[in-house]
Amino acid sequence: MFEGKCEVCFVKYYEGKVRKLIKKFDLIEKGDKVMAAVSGGKDSLSCLFLLGLMRGSLKMELEAMYIDLGMKGCTGEKSKKVVEELCRRIDVKLNVVKISDYADRSIIEAAKITGRPMCSVCGVAKRYLMNKFTREKGFEKLATGHNTDDVIRFFFKNVVSGRTEWTEKLKPLLKPLHEKMVYKIKPLFECEERENEFYLSVNGIDFVKNRCSFRDEWKEIADKIESTKKGFKLSLVRWLEKVKIEETPRALKECEICGEPTSSSICSFCRIFKSV
Amino acid sequence: MFEGKCEVCFVKYYEGKVRKLIKKFDLIEKGDKVMAAVSGGKDSLSCLFLLGLMRGSLKMELEAMYIDLGMKGCTGEKSKKVVEELCRRIDVKLNVVKISDYADRSIIEAAKITGRPMCSVCGVAKRYLMNKFTREKGFEKLATGHNTDDVIRFFFKNVVSGRTEWTEKLKPLLKPLHEKMVYKIKPLFECEERENEFYLSVNGIDFVKNRCSFRDEWKEIADKIESTKKGFKLSLVRWLEKVKIEETPRALKECEICGEPTSSSICSFCRIFKSV
Repeated sequence: MFEGKCEVCFVKYYEGKVRKLIKKFDLIEKGDKVMAAVSGGKDSLSCLFLLGLMRGSLKMELEAMYIDLGMKGCTGEKSKKVVEELCRRIDVKLNVVKISDYADRSIIEAAKITGRPMCSVCGVAKRYLMNKFTREKGFEKLATGHNTDDVIRFFFKNVVSGRTEWTEKLKPLLKPLHEKMVYKIKPLFECEERENEFYLSVNGIDFVKNRCSFRDEWKEIADKIESTKKGFKLSLVRWLEKVKIEETPRALKECEICGEPTSSSICSFCRIFKSV
Repeated sequence: MFEGKCEVCFVKYYEGKVRKLIKKFDLIEKGDKVMAAVSGGKDSLSCLFLLGLMRGSLKMELEAMYIDLGMKGCTGEKSKKVVEELCRRIDVKLNVVKISDYADRSIIEAAKITGRPMCSVCGVAKRYLMNKFTREKGFEKLATGHNTDDVIRFFFKNVVSGRTEWTEKLKPLLKPLHEKMVYKIKPLFECEERENEFYLSVNGIDFVKNRCSFRDEWKEIADKIESTKKGFKLSLVRWLEKVKIEETPRALKECEICGEPTSSSICSFCRIFKSV
């Protein structure tokens, strides 16, 4: 049972919500080649499983990619194992991308050298590799497990930053801003983390818990609001789907070292991971 | 002292913030006739006092209006007295508008008959009279004491409603949607209630406390966030100043009974306050 819904009703509700979102924002169109990025956590596995189910009806080509960050504990063997298990089960080709094939140093070394937090360095690596690998594989769309809680966390965090250009990033569909960028889609935009977790358990899918250990204050705040104002999170992301900021997007160029799209002359990945 | 600022620094900061907002959104232009709506509470009195100070530099014509809601306790003699005191002190003409001159029944009776909460019925009356009186007096702009806390309360409350057309109302400047509507301006958009209260105390201005007694859950939530994330409220309203929703505004017509602008055939005021 999930909040008064039995397993059957929950799955109907959950999958229906995702199907409607995909349709509403044209996230996936006939013939699309979609790469699902999976980490082994509940969100990305839910996303991959869902896309696997919808492959036929949406008439898309689907593959998965897993980034081996070369870190024990964080993305150890267990993560890769659950990803491999699910890909085998739903017959989706899995691509394993090793950060060590692209970087001159490990995430831990990079964090030390640059003085940046691990989460930030890891995020740069993942975003870089997801885009580069998807494009080089000839796929035009990258699907991630970003969910309602991620979107709200991102929203609150960025509101406080005082900047505004992030507003356009908070959408279920992100169009490429450069020819070397792929479309980014978030099929779970309207699904909460706990819904994804329940969805996996209903479908008998194993996943890795708590890979990142930072305390998430914004998640706590949003949960607190949701506890007294039922439906707050879903309403907020649905409102965010519609808002716009009138701003001209920054022009992107190509990194002088690797050629990937960036807003400065050398991209974040090269600045952090290259020893040049 | 207010959060480490002495009275002089606070006043400079507070008035500077309002001046910048007025300039940024062209809230008031040379020659404008501005009607300040005052209830006797801290927000509307701060707004009136500020506009009084800026009258010369902004080259506007300023008057005040006070709505006598005919209710003891809520807007009793004390409210009217503090409004009269301030208007005398800063030499602004005060217009007293009696709801009984426009309505067939009192607010208490209207709430009983319609089954609507008092706050809702009172809000309809105030919005109706503010617009009608300002326009009929030949003024084109109505200034209200809406502050950061009001804006955030309105934001959260409406997010949960699931509708979106309210987004355009959350701006410091609201243009008329009908020829019988006046501009609505919110000079205190970036000022918190507690700042307004402190500003009045610094300037030796008396006001009426807690006129409405409903418990405000959204205010509590926003205060809680602000207590751990300093600057959250101000950042949120500044972000809201910029967001847009792509929606065609509803066409307004004129009320069949009183001729005021409305989205239905009979306006809320007449439905609630007229015995026809």
